[in-house]
Parts: sequence; C-alpha cells; structure tokens
Amino acid sequence: MTAPATTDSYRIADMSLAEAGRHQLRLAEAEMPGLMALRAEYRGQRPLAGARIAGSLHMTVQTAVLIETLVDLGAQVRWASCNIFSTQDEAAAAVVVGPTGTPDEPAGVPVFAWKGETLDEYWWCAERIFDWSAEAAAAGADWTGPNLILDDGGDATLLVHNGVTFERAGAVPDAETAENEEHRIVLGLLRDSLAADPQRWSRVAAEIRGVTEETTTGVHRLHELCRAGELLFPAINVNDSVTKSKFDNKYGIRHSLPDGLNRATDVLIGGKVALVVGYGDVGKGAAEALAGQGARVIVTEVDPICALQAAMDGFQVATIEEVVGQVDIFVTCTGNKNVITVDHMRGMKHLAVVANVGHFDNEIDMAGLESLAGAESVLIKPQVHEWRLPTGRSILVLSEGRLMNLGNATGHPSFVMSNSFTNQVLAQLELYLRLDSYPVGVHVLPKHLDEKVARLHLDALGVRLTTLTPEQAAYIGVPVEGPFKGENYRY
Amino acid sequence: MTAPATTDSYRIADMSLAEAGRHQLRLAEAEMPGLMALRAEYRGQRPLAGARIAGSLHMTVQTAVLIETLVDLGAQVRWASCNIFSTQDEAAAAVVVGPTGTPDEPAGVPVFAWKGETLDEYWWCAERIFDWSAEAAAAGADWTGPNLILDDGGDATLLVHNGVTFERAGAVPDAETAENEEHRIVLGLLRDSLAADPQRWSRVAAEIRGVTEETTTGVHRLHELCRAGELLFPAINVNDSVTKSKFDNKYGIRHSLPDGLNRATDVLIGGKVALVVGYGDVGKGAAEALAGQGARVIVTEVDPICALQAAMDGFQVATIEEVVGQVDIFVTCTGNKNVITVDHMRGMKHLAVVANVGHFDNEIDMAGLESLAGAESVLIKPQVHEWRLPTGRSILVLSEGRLMNLGNATGHPSFVMSNSFTNQVLAQLELYLRLDSYPVGVHVLPKHLDEKVARLHLDALGVRLTTLTPEQAAYIGVPVEGPFKGENYRY
Amino acid sequence: MTAPATTDSYRIADMSLAEAGRHQLRLAEAEMPGLMALRAEYRGQRPLAGARIAGSLHMTVQTAVLIETLVDLGAQVRWASCNIFSTQDEAAAAVVVGPTGTPDEPAGVPVFAWKGETLDEYWWCAERIFDWSAEAAAAGADWTGPNLILDDGGDATLLVHNGVTFERAGAVPDAETAENEEHRIVLGLLRDSLAADPQRWSRVAAEIRGVTEETTTGVHRLHELCRAGELLFPAINVNDSVTKSKFDNKYGIRHSLPDGLNRATDVLIGGKVALVVGYGDVGKGAAEALAGQGARVIVTEVDPICALQAAMDGFQVATIEEVVGQVDIFVTCTGNKNVITVDHMRGMKHLAVVANVGHFDNEIDMAGLESLAGAESVLIKPQVHEWRLPTGRSILVLSEGRLMNLGNATGHPSFVMSNSFTNQVLAQLELYLRLDSYPVGVHVLPKHLDEKVARLHLDALGVRLTTLTPEQAAYIGVPVEGPFKGENYRY
Amino acid sequence: MTAPATTDSYRIADMSLAEAGRHQLRLAEAEMPGLMALRAEYRGQRPLAGARIAGSLHMTVQTAVLIETLVDLGAQVRWASCNIFSTQDEAAAAVVVGPTGTPDEPAGVPVFAWKGETLDEYWWCAERIFDWSAEAAAAGADWTGPNLILDDGGDATLLVHNGVTFERAGAVPDAETAENEEHRIVLGLLRDSLAADPQRWSRVAAEIRGVTEETTTGVHRLHELCRAGELLFPAINVNDSVTKSKFDNKYGIRHSLPDGLNRATDVLIGGKVALVVGYGDVGKGAAEALAGQGARVIVTEVDPICALQAAMDGFQVATIEEVVGQVDIFVTCTGNKNVITVDHMRGMKHLAVVANVGHFDNEIDMAGLESLAGAESVLIKPQVHEWRLPTGRSILVLSEGRLMNLGNATGHPSFVMSNSFTNQVLAQLELYLRLDSYPVGVHVLPKHLDEKVARLHLDALGVRLTTLTPEQAAYIGVPVEGPFKGENYRY
Repeated sequence: MTAPATTDSYRIADMSLAEAGRHQLRLAEAEMPGLMALRAEYRGQRPLAGARIAGSLHMTVQTAVLIETLVDLGAQVRWASCNIFSTQDEAAAAVVVGPTGTPDEPAGVPVFAWKGETLDEYWWCAERIFDWSAEAAAAGADWTGPNLILDDGGDATLLVHNGVTFERAGAVPDAETAENEEHRIVLGLLRDSLAADPQRWSRVAAEIRGVTEETTTGVHRLHELCRAGELLFPAINVNDSVTKSKFDNKYGIRHSLPDGLNRATDVLIGGKVALVVGYGDVGKGAAEALAGQGARVIVTEVDPICALQAAMDGFQVATIEEVVGQVDIFVTCTGNKNVITVDHMRGMKHLAVVANVGHFDNEIDMAGLESLAGAESVLIKPQVHEWRLPTGRSILVLSEGRLMNLGNATGHPSFVMSNSFTNQVLAQLELYLRLDSYPVGVHVLPKHLDEKVARLHLDALGVRLTTLTPEQAAYIGVPVEGPFKGENYRY
Repeated sequence: MTAPATTDSYRIADMSLAEAGRHQLRLAEAEMPGLMALRAEYRGQRPLAGARIAGSLHMTVQTAVLIETLVDLGAQVRWASCNIFSTQDEAAAAVVVGPTGTPDEPAGVPVFAWKGETLDEYWWCAERIFDWSAEAAAAGADWTGPNLILDDGGDATLLVHNGVTFERAGAVPDAETAENEEHRIVLGLLRDSLAADPQRWSRVAAEIRGVTEETTTGVHRLHELCRAGELLFPAINVNDSVTKSKFDNKYGIRHSLPDGLNRATDVLIGGKVALVVGYGDVGKGAAEALAGQGARVIVTEVDPICALQAAMDGFQVATIEEVVGQVDIFVTCTGNKNVITVDHMRGMKHLAVVANVGHFDNEIDMAGLESLAGAESVLIKPQVHEWRLPTGRSILVLSEGRLMNLGNATGHPSFVMSNSFTNQVLAQLELYLRLDSYPVGVHVLPKHLDEKVARLHLDALGVRLTTLTPEQAAYIGVPVEGPFKGENYRY
Repeated sequence: MTAPATTDSYRIADMSLAEAGRHQLRLAEAEMPGLMALRAEYRGQRPLAGARIAGSLHMTVQTAVLIETLVDLGAQVRWASCNIFSTQDEAAAAVVVGPTGTPDEPAGVPVFAWKGETLDEYWWCAERIFDWSAEAAAAGADWTGPNLILDDGGDATLLVHNGVTFERAGAVPDAETAENEEHRIVLGLLRDSLAADPQRWSRVAAEIRGVTEETTTGVHRLHELCRAGELLFPAINVNDSVTKSKFDNKYGIRHSLPDGLNRATDVLIGGKVALVVGYGDVGKGAAEALAGQGARVIVTEVDPICALQAAMDGFQVATIEEVVGQVDIFVTCTGNKNVITVDHMRGMKHLAVVANVGHFDNEIDMAGLESLAGAESVLIKPQVHEWRLPTGRSILVLSEGRLMNLGNATGHPSFVMSNSFTNQVLAQLELYLRLDSYPVGVHVLPKHLDEKVARLHLDALGVRLTTLTPEQAAYIGVPVEGPFKGENYRY
Repeated sequence: MTAPATTDSYRIADMSLAEAGRHQLRLAEAEMPGLMALRAEYRGQRPLAGARIAGSLHMTVQTAVLIETLVDLGAQVRWASCNIFSTQDEAAAAVVVGPTGTPDEPAGVPVFAWKGETLDEYWWCAERIFDWSAEAAAAGADWTGPNLILDDGGDATLLVHNGVTFERAGAVPDAETAENEEHRIVLGLLRDSLAADPQRWSRVAAEIRGVTEETTTGVHRLHELCRAGELLFPAINVNDSVTKSKFDNKYGIRHSLPDGLNRATDVLIGGKVALVVGYGDVGKGAAEALAGQGARVIVTEVDPICALQAAMDGFQVATIEEVVGQVDIFVTCTGNKNVITVDHMRGMKHLAVVANVGHFDNEIDMAGLESLAGAESVLIKPQVHEWRLPTGRSILVLSEGRLMNLGNATGHPSFVMSNSFTNQVLAQLELYLRLDSYPVGVHVLPKHLDEKVARLHLDALGVRLTTLTPEQAAYIGVPVEGPFKGENYRY
C-alpha cells in the first residue's frame, strides 16, 4: 500500500484551519466540565508522565479536548480516527498545531485522521499510532510503541492482537481468505509488516499495559478474546460505566439523532411515523427524541424485557414487516446486522428516510442494496443518497448506512462526551497508576469513579446535591460520600 | 397479648364480601396474564404439590390471584398481610371462602389479615402463618410449619430468624431493650413462644427450604443476615428481577402515586410544584407521573449519577432546604429515614401535601411530628390528616406517613403486580424444584426466567416481538430464544 | 308527581354531614384563589346586594365555595344540581347549614340536590329554585322568582323558556309527543304549573335580568334560542372564556379522566391502547393524561384541523372501525351522539373499558346497548357495570355512559373550577351591575375580565408575571395592563 | 443608490446551482402535499391566468415550490426575499432557470434575492418586483406593476403605501427624519422614484387587487393602516388561518428552533436551563421542543392567560431578572422589542446562547449591545458571534439577533410551509376570483378553506378521518362535510 504522505493531518495542518479549530475547542471546553475538572485536580502533578497513549477514536472537537487533557496530565499521545468519515479537520489541525505552535513548528500531538479516508488510508493511519520511533529517538529510549491504548470499536486492539497471532504463526492468511475488502486490507498491512519485521507486533504488545475501550462492539470483541484466552493485556470497559452507557447512548442519541435527520433532510419529524429498531439505551434515546418532536414512534425488539419497556413507555411494538409500508423514518439502534434488509427497503414508502445510529453499516443491508439489480444511487448532498429502487420508489439513505449522527451531524455534543471521556481519562489513570488492581481480563471502573464522573458534571447544570446524614448513611449501609448503590443497580 | 380471635379474616369471611371479592378477582385475572399463563402452562401437573407456603404480603385482590395461582400449582398456603392498612377485606374473604366454598365451609386458604390491624394484631397474624398444626393433623404429618416463605419486607423471615436466635440463646431480650413499640411487641410474642415451646422456631427453620423476597428493604435485611453468617436458608431476591424492579417500582408508582393523591385530596396536580425526594426507580416513576399531569417537578438526590439523570430528564435538582417553601406536593421515594424532617415541615406552604411511596413511615419524621409541641392532627377523612403546626400553617399528611399508594389508593394495579408475582411464582418453583442450584445465600432469578416473565405479558398489550435469525443471533453471540443480555445490562 | 319532601338537602342536612362538608370547603377554598380573591376585593361592599340567583350546577364542594362567594358578595341564592349523580351530599349539607348555622337553624342557602336523584326528583328540584315565595315573604317583597340564573347545561333556562312558550300558547303538548322519558316529565311538570298558575313562568321570566351559562351544550341551546328570536333575556357564555374552555375542558379532564378510570377499574393505564374519540379541548386533555400515564393513544376525529393537530402531537388518527379490536380503553370527548355504537361495542376486546367525558350519555349508544338481545349488565361496584355481550365478551361501562369524571371520581378539581367559577361570578356581576352593556343575545365576557380570572390564579402557582414597559406596550399597540390579545387570538 | 446589477439571482443563476436546487425542490414537493394537491385540482384550468403576483417572502426551497405552484395555476410572478439572510441561493437559481430552462435561456421566474444582501440591496430588490415593464412589453400591455401582492412582514405593502403617500404629498421626508438606517434607505429610494416619476406608485397601487399577508407583524401593520383609513386595497390575513398560526408558529418552531441551536452551537440541550420569552404559539412550540430534548424550561410572560397556560403545562414562570444568571439558552418569541436588554445580557452566564425566533432583531437589544463600551464581537462561524462583554463573560448571539431558525438553520420544514403556503395560494385565488367578497379591509380566509388546507395534508401522514352521519351532523348543527366549528373556536 502507498502511504498517503501528503494528506495526513500531521502534515497538512494549516493555521487558519487550526485557528478555527482552536475557537471550537475553547467553546467545547466550557461544555466539558469533567475533563476540565480533572485538569484542575491534577494541576502541576502530571500523573500520566511517562504514559505513551495510542488513541483510536473519532477525531472530533470533543476528542481534541480529551487529547489535550491527557497531555495536560503528562501523557504523550498519537492519534487516529476510528471511522473514515468522522474526523473534523479543524479539530485535527488544532490538536496537531497545539495551543502554542504553528503549522511549521507544530507543538501539539501527531494526528493521523482526515474526513473522508479510504479504507487503505484508514488502516495506514491506524498503523501510524503504533510507531513511536520519533518519540523514542527524541527521548533516547528504545520504545517500539505505546504503553496504553485508548480504543473505540477495537480496531487498534485488533491490529495488535492480529499482528501477534500472525507473528506467532509466522504467516499471514492469504488475501482470498479475507471476509471482505477491509479484512483484505488488514491482512495486506500485516503481511507487509511481517515481511519487514517478524516481531514488531510482539514487541508492541509486550510494552502495552492495557486498553480502555469506548464501545459495546469493542467490549464484545474484548470479551471474545478473553473467553478464548487470547487477550494480551488488561482492558477497562469504559462503555459500561453508567455515566457512559446511560448518558452517551441515551442522551447523546437523543440529541444527535434529530440533529442528523434535520441537517440531512430538513424533513419535518412531527406527525411522521418513525420506526426505532431496537429499544436498548440508544433506542430509548432515539424514541424519546422523535416523540419529543411529535413523531409517532413504533419500536421493534427481540428482547421481551425491552419490548415490554417500550410498551410501558407508550410505544407500539411491532415487527418491521407489519409496519414497513407506513413508516417515514427508519432508525436502526441494535448493534446487530441486517436488521433492515433489501426486502424491507423494497416495501418502504417513497422517500422514506433510512438512518443508522447503532454501530456498523451492516445494520442496514447496504451490501445487498448495492448489488440489487436496477437500484441506482443519486447523491443529493454529502452523506445523503437517494436510492431509486426497481419498485419505482426511492429511499433516502443517510451516511451510506454508517452512523448518521456522526456522518450527517457532528456526533454527540460536548457535554455528553465529557462524561464518556472523563471515564476514559480515569480508566487510563487506573491502568497507569493502579495496574495491580487490573489483571488480564475485562474490567469496569469501580463505582466510586463512576459516581465521580457524574459529580464533576453537576455544577455546570446547576444541580445541588443532598448529603446524607451519618445516621441516614448508616441506616442504608453506605458511606456518607458514596458509593451509594450495589454493583447490580440498574439506574 | 390477646388473640383477636373474632376478627381474623379466616373466620369473619361472609358471603357478600367474598362475592364482591370474587368479582374483583375475575377482573384482576384478566389483568394478570403472567400468572394465568403459568396456570395454563402447568395445567394438570401440580408442580408445587407438597409445598407448604407461608406468605406475608399485602392482602390485596392481586395477591389473591397470586395465592390462587400457587394453589392451582399444587401448593398449600397460609397468608398474612405485611402492612396493617393494606388488606382489602373483600379480597381476603374471597381467598378464604375460595372459588367453590361458603363462609361456613370455606374451601380456600387461611388468611390472617384485615384492614386496620393494630401492631399487636399484625404480629399475631404473622405468627399464625407458621402454625401448620391443622394442616399437619389433616395430612397425618408431623409438620411444624411451612417449607417455603414468600415474604414482602422480611417480617416473616425476621420472625423465624429472631425466634431461632433467642432459642439458641435460651432467652429473649428484655422489653426495655426494644428499639420501639413494634420491637417490644415482637419480643413479647417470642418470649411467650419460648416459654411455651423452647424449640419451636428452630423446628420451623429446619423445615424451610428457602424464602422469596419481594422488596428492596427485605433484600437489604437478607444481605445483612448473609454477611453476618446468620442466614438460615437460601433466599431468592425477586425484587431485583428487571421485570420486578423496573416495572413494579417505576410503572407501578407512575400509576398509583397520582391515584393516591387524587383519592386523598382531589387537589389539581397540574401547575403545582412537586418535590420528588429520591430519583431511583420509584422516584423516576413518580416524577414521570407528576410531570405527565402538568406539575413542575423538582428532585432531590444524594447519588450524583441519579442526580445527573434527573437533570438530563429535564428536572431541577435542588436540596429540600432550598425549595421547601415553594412546594405544593412532597413525595418521598428513598427507602431511607427522616428525609423529611420536622424542620422541613415547619417551612412548608399552608396545606402542602406530604406523601410517602418509598418504604417505611420513617421516611417522613412522623415520630418527631407527633411529639412536636403545639402540633395537632385533624382527621379529614380516612388516611388523610391535617396537621396544624405551631407556625399557624397546616400540612396534609397521607396514610400517617406510610405508603400512600396502598393507604390512599389500592396499590399497584394488577398488570404491574402480575409481573412481580410471576417472578414470585417462578422463584417458589425454583426453590421447590431446583433447590440444588440455590445454596444458602441471596440469589436473583436467572435471566431467562426474567425474560420469560416479560414474554408472558406481551400478548395482552398487543406487542409483537421480532425473532433473531440464526445469523443475527450468532453475530451478537446469543441464543435465538435468549437470554439476550449480560448480567450487568441495565435496561 | 310526588314531591320527595323528606329527601331534599334543605331538610335532611345533619350536622355530621355538614361538618364533614365544612372541612372539605375549607380545603377547597385554599385551592380556589380566584373566588377568594373576589371575596377580598369586594370585602364590605356587597355588590350583589339585591341579586336573587337561581343556580343549577353540579352541587359539589367547589360549587359550595362558589355559592358562598355569591352570598359573600351580597346575593341571595337557591340551588339545584344539573345532574342526578353529581351531588356531594356533604357539600350540599354544609351549604344548607352555612358556616354559622345548625341543621335546626340553618343559616345557609336552600339547596335542592342529593346524590342519586330520579329524573322526577331532578325536575322537582329544578322547579324549586324558581320559587322565591319564602324569601319574598321574609323581605316583604312581591318577587315571583330570581332575577339572575346561573346555569350549567341550560336546564334552568329551558324550564323558563318552555314555561313561557306554553303559557303563551295556553297549553302544554301531550305527553305522547315527548321525545323521551325526561321530556315527558318536563311536560308534566309544566302542565301542572299551567293548571295552577297560567302566568307563573311569564312573571318569572320578566324578573330575570339574564343568565350565565357554563357549558358548550348550554351555549349551543342559547344560540339556537337566539337565532330563533326566542331568547327572553341576555346570556353570558361563560364556557367560551379562555380561562374556562381552555382550562376546565383541557386541564380539568387531564386530571379527572385518569382519576375516574383508576377509581372505577384500578386497571393499569400504562402500556394500554386508548382511543380518544374527538380531539377538541376535552380530547386534548384526555390524550395528554393517557399519554402521560404511558398509554398508546389513538385519536378519532371528523374535523380535519383537529385531526392534523392530533397527528402533529404524535398520535395515530384512525377511524374507530379500523382499531376497535385493539383498544383497551375508549374515551368519548365529542358532545355528539352515538359516537360509540352497539356495533362498535360488539367488536371490542374482552373487558374493554368504555368511558364518556364528553357530555350526554348518548355519546355512547346506551339505549341501543340496553335493548340488545342477549346483553346483560352486572354491577361490579357503584357506577361500574360489566355488560356481557352476546359475543361472549364483556365490556366495562362506567357511570352508565354519563360523565365518568363526575360519576366515578369527583369531577374537576377545585383549582380548575376556581377558574370557571370566577368567570361565573364576574359574569353575574356584569349582568347585575352593567346590564346596559348586554342586550338580549349571547355574549362572552370582555377579554380584560378573562385576563383578570387568570391573574387571580397566578400567585397560588408561584407564577411571576412580567410587566411591559410603556415603550413595549406602545410598540405592540396594547395598554400596559392589558388586554393583550385580539378577540380572535386562539391561545 | 447603485443597483447591484451583477449579483441578482435573475442574472447569476448558474446551472450547477440550479440543478442542486432542482433536486431539493423535488424532495420538497414530496413534503408539500397541499401545494401539490392544488396543482392536481386545477390541472389544465389555469385559474390564475392573468394574475401578476409580486412576492416578497424568504426565498427558500419551500417558497420555490410555492412560486412554481402559482405559475402552474397560470400566474406571472416576480419575487424578492423579505430578509437579507434567508435566501437559499440554489433555490433562487432553480426558480430563475425553471424546470425546462438554462441559465442562458431562463424559463422560470425573475427572482431578486441572494443570501447576505445589504440593506441597500434588499430595498433595491423589493423595488424590482414592482417593475413589470419587461412583462408588459412582452404582452403588449400597459401594466405598471403587479395586480396582486404576496407579502411576508409587509415590506412590499409598505413600499406601495409609502410611495402613494409621498406622491400625494408631492415630497419625501428628509433623510434626517428617518427612524433608523433602513428607513433612510427607503426614503432615499422613494425620493429617487418621486423625482423620476411622480405618479409611479399611485399607478402601481391602482392596479393592485389586494395583498395576502403571511405574518403577525405584517397583519399588525395592515390593521394599523386600516384603522387609519389608509389601506389602499383588500388584504387577506393568512397568518390567522388556524392551519397557519397554529402550525407554522407552533410546529414549525418546534422543529426549527432545536435545529438552529444544534447547527449553530452543537451544545447539548438536555439538562440545560432554557428561558422561553413569551408563551404564544411560537413560545409553546419552543418550550415543547426544548422540553422534548430534556431541557428545563422557564417561561416569561406578560399575559396572565398565557402565563397560566405555561404553569399548567408544567413550566416555571418567572421574570427574566429572577433567573437570568441560571439560564443556558435564551429564546425570544414575542414579536415585541427589547425583551432582552443589555442589562440582561450583562447578567448572563458565560457562553449563554441568545437566540431569537420571534420576529425582528430588536427583540434582543442588538443596537444597545453594539454600542456597549468594551463589548467585542468575535465571529465563531457564520451567523454565530461570541460577544465578549466588559463583565469578563461572553455570550453567543445567533444570527445577529435576527430569526435564527432561518439564519442558523433552513427555516420551517417543507411540510409546515405547505400548510402556510396552501393558505397563501387559496388566498390569492380568493382575491383574484372572488374579489367581491373582500372589500377594502383585513380579512381571514373562510373556515371551509382553512379546513381544506388541513384536509389536503392528512393522507401524507396516514391520518384516517371519520365522517359524521347525517344524524350526527344535524345533532351538532353542522354540515356533514364541515365547516365544523364556530369562528371563535380556539383549537
């Protein structure tokens, strides 16, 4: 593969882009009280001094505040995005240039990410965050790579684990065994790596203390590695902190789903029929947002408990087949695949909107749509395609089936991400400072840290917390300062 | 103590009361699809044959359907209420008489419960459910008591454990060591018992296979016993089934809180300021109900995560001291004590309504109020007292500070209780049929049974569930038929 | 007809009933700030001195506060209920006895109303409020009847107009021309009157300065009289004050509909399918209440504008025929007749609830149901009937098809009625003090009085109003103190 | 003034812009069923043949569908925008080029509008829509100007009336008498006109049959002209059609307010405190949208009825002074001036968002802000300014205080505008075909047309309307096919 040398953010950063990004960072900081509180708490202490963090997470303005928080706490950082579309170029530029640098003398963090990467470029970027040769040279150290990973979706972790596996096997599987185009690219990259340095990834893995993972999907992969006995280092599951899963998933989607729909289509949501596919936290946020705009929401579910919740919340629960012809807006929220099939698409109303806020683009059978004879795609505007179907009707597919809240809007807002990212920073601190508490395996953060994340976000909302009296605390058997709930409490 | 021989439901049941109750049972059965589905599933099999169940749970119409379900599955049952006010006499009468009996020849279940028991009577009733001498005689068996307990709040379990403790010690503590009047009564009852039969409770305990517990408070007590190494038999925590905690607590309160407020006061909820003390599941249901009626809801919280949830749901979060003078309706939802103090009451608006849907009557400092010099209580109507305070203002206290959704209304509606009680029946079945899976300790039901409870309630609401394809199930790593979520999933 | 001499409230008032009512009045006064503000405003002035008011309006606790407000302003009053079921006997007793009287020496107002009147008794009561002979004798005056009517539904107004018509004709139509049983009773009453005194109603009418009418139905009748040139005196349409129609109809129903459903059935509203028939103000309040409890609401409408509003508010709009088999709770809100037919009832689910909050009992075809072969009614409890249909299914009919928020609950709460009744008092004052402004015809209150009603209710809710600057008032062309809107503003 | 000859849409239209606009028109047509239904109803009839319409209304995609509907019905049209920022250039280009034309041979409608006009340019554009010399020449006619005006805000109507006034006076007031910069420009334009042709506007006015006006503000001006006896031709008040005021104002704002906030700031709405200034239809829509996103909404009001509605809808009602320091998002919805003063701004939180969806930019005292010593404006991105105040805090002002739903988003969505614009087309048809029914004065559309507008939008939402039986229609005294409500019904 050819390294797209001239297009990586690290080099293209220009000052006007960086300045625009810096403005946005300043505004975002005001909406990210958790991260700013950690900077204040550790002012002058640099608890992450010596940490070398490889980050793979959507390179947005909010992530920029996260990165600069990690740096403020003493860490060295290299970064890539975890999605080919989600980079905000001005944020990347601002991080590269840094608060005090210039494009010629960047004083920030190397970022390998730009909006609209090809898959080849994407994996090239992913590989770059593991090459710490420049930092090693500058420090006179013999580092191969990072000592911590901060991951979203597990691609960075996957690269290391696959690299080690193939190095142990001494070979990379043939390209024709690849499950899909992306897999073929990863195999190619690792084949080149194996040829160049047959122990590179093994050395990388040996230096890594652990990974903190952002998403359901990434955590799922970690659990699979763990069950298979193949997990190479401890992992902290940030996704299942309450202040992540219940906030990012629910309140983030509540905000960013209608935002994406509006920017993409300008179609009135009120009065329309919306189908929310899946009533987990994401689906709950989606349904609340759509109902709050006056849509009539119908839910599909496979889990009887979630289905009963949807009914008790006042929503019709149906199968997609029963209602497909009445629905104006389809929103997938499952993390599963093919929940909207080509057959479903053929049954939809003319100009029905099809949007995914679940996880991968295979929630909607985009591959099936692309191979459907007689179907034709017309670009209406960036990330909005009209697919003309052989039925004579069209549907509007947002962000090519990928996460539309990132592709058609700007992702979750800063305040939500401040919750998620404060968990990330606390998790990085745990792995760096208290690694003994985290043997190889998949862990969640202890509840007192989860509560700390929440606590750091209350003032900004004008929330006044009540304090238990010692008698009350004793009565319910908790410390006055918390934690207040058992591990299984569901919030 | 004097046994209130002439007033127990078992004997007073008259036919008109029983017939009225039978009508209500028939309507309630239509709203309790989970219990009716279990009757259908086990038709003719009597899986609980041989089970002797001592039940202590509010003796309402819904509980009557539960009792008759247990009987339909083959169990023998004796019953008391777990609250002095919550019995619906017609339900008790119907259960005693049974579907086919008459007051003279009752064909139902012995019930020791009536609306408005004294504390003396309450504990007399509680003791009665452990006396299986009549059943033993009829069966030619040598049973002392039940082999299963179905408990709500833990009073039945407490009685057995205290009895055993005192029998082991050979003495009951002096009355003057009692924490309060109720404790004094319990000590007296056990002192009489010890005198009459120094091994009675030890024999009772030995026969008991386990207990299924309905409430947070009861589960809290069980965990304390377990931690102290004093738990005598396995316990299943029904309270923390999702289909109990998230349904009974949230949706039940959403229904029964405004119902109780309306029946008690007829005061318009819309436009009023309501303070919801505690934003757990009960508080969430309370806030939704009040907001749904157009009240302006303010929340107090001690837990920063729940506080942040309240803020994200659009509610002001304040301390009670900040807002006490603006609030029209106070609702306690904490399970803690003294969350409304006498000082708070002195600061309230004239005719502010004070209501508890949390747990014990000490959520509101009723003891403090009763001893407040110059305070005077006027009965407005049953379970509604105007307390004239020395400030010159009055407040309206519902159900004397006890659970007002039971005292001022009829508790949770049948459909909600069907979820909770289907969990109870499944838990009784587990302890009776699969005791090996439940060593001494506190357990929750396995997730597949939790999902089963939900599944049994979908048809009645017209919910149509989607079925995973085998490919989809494999993709997310679950069986096609579930369970669908990990143990820590929060719903 | 036989005068039910021993059962009218005027005579049966006993002290315990009156005392219970007096307690409730005291609480209601705290919830009726508009009426209490008028008492304060006119303290010592008695602006209604000389007014003789015949009132026909549900004899509830709230009406008692209205009556005592009229008395406080100097009026003499006689009262009947406008519904055979809606009287709260303790309220009637308290009004009769008066704040300072005893049953033997009543110091209050003659009230002719009790819960559960027959139709014969109802019209006997209605006639009694026009007989002011006792008051005339006491005053040494030659009054025949009242000089003002305060009406709800128009029955009192109808009686006068029919009386005059028949006196002018010199005859009352034959009983066999009666449209129904009730009409037959009215004709009988007027036939007796004509025989006894052929000019009675003409003299009554001549003394009447005007009527203030509470309801849509009554106003509709007034407009018909006016269009036909038969209206005998000015009428003020209180129903169409914004602070009546938008408050009583919408917010009152939002409160009292779920209250009535709960008291009648204890059925969980959450998760159920509810059909709201008609999306006017009443239907809007009903839909909001049901949705606020987690029901899935479907609306039927004939008016395309209201139908579009329902859709924009997120509700499915369907015909009853499309959805009848899925609905758990039917609520009629139309003011029309036969909106639920016997055919609809035959298609309903088993134990579907059928409730009317519109107007007359003919919204539901109760007559058709009663004559349906094979249908059988079983009384479950007062005002709740199970109708067993020949289909083998049953339905639950509330309040025999009459207004269930009155029959199964206690009607609108005091705060809502304070808005309506403050309009009534202002309207009575207008007719008594500024009759010149109101020629024979149907009038609404001037907007400044409508705004005054609202203004008198703000403090109790903690509302702080903003005041226009003179520049702002000039800019939008209104006085600083209002009125603020044009006559056609829709709120 | 200098005509900005090279920048008017009529001339700059290029094909790629026009094609992008044409795509958007096609999608918008699917969301504007009312306009498309009128095209279908009048297919082949050209009822507006001979009509010459001068339009002044935001030149958006939706307006493009309106314009092409007018053309489809036979009218000739010239168009300007009524706001310097609101033009969507691609929509203007598409209308100019027309469905069948090219930039070189445009086959559409002359449009004088582009995004970001200066005030000079704005009034130059406004004047151009009255110059029909080219059309007259092509038709061999002696027209001076249009025979119909379609207006939004009244600027086009104002120009004609001012022109006539000054021509009658024979002079234009001195520039120094101008109230502000914009007034000075209008006076200059009319001074030039008077010099060039002293009877031009009098001839224009004589040809005009009437105007249809879109907004509250424009209607207010028309009523002032009418009261002053200066109105020159009939006016139809489209704003007060129910399907305009209750839809555009409420449901349009519900959609476009959060859209604008999100595009402008990406700030999380959930959990924030939002102040809605004014609780008319616009404020009601704003409050619903913000609450639906989880904000805590506080309302300010001057009208006690609207204030009481806000309270009954569950919102705190306060004065701005009481809460200014707690509010994160300010939204003005009043149509009044200076509802947010510089003093208020000085008291706001750091980075509070200030947004106007009321009417003119003087709702917020922008003039005062601009002249505040020490205040500095920083452009964050187009239409988003950070104002750094001398307090050391900043506020974010959207769209320079003008309508942010237009400036920061794309205005109301097509479906809402379809309601408003269907009213406009029906009003133009009324003035053109049934002018006799509309003497000089300000009229609303008859209710049957209002209901027709609603009816044309039901199918697209899947709404199924119920039809009255003849007996039901007779019972409530309306025709089976409507209209169903009296003129004063408030919906």
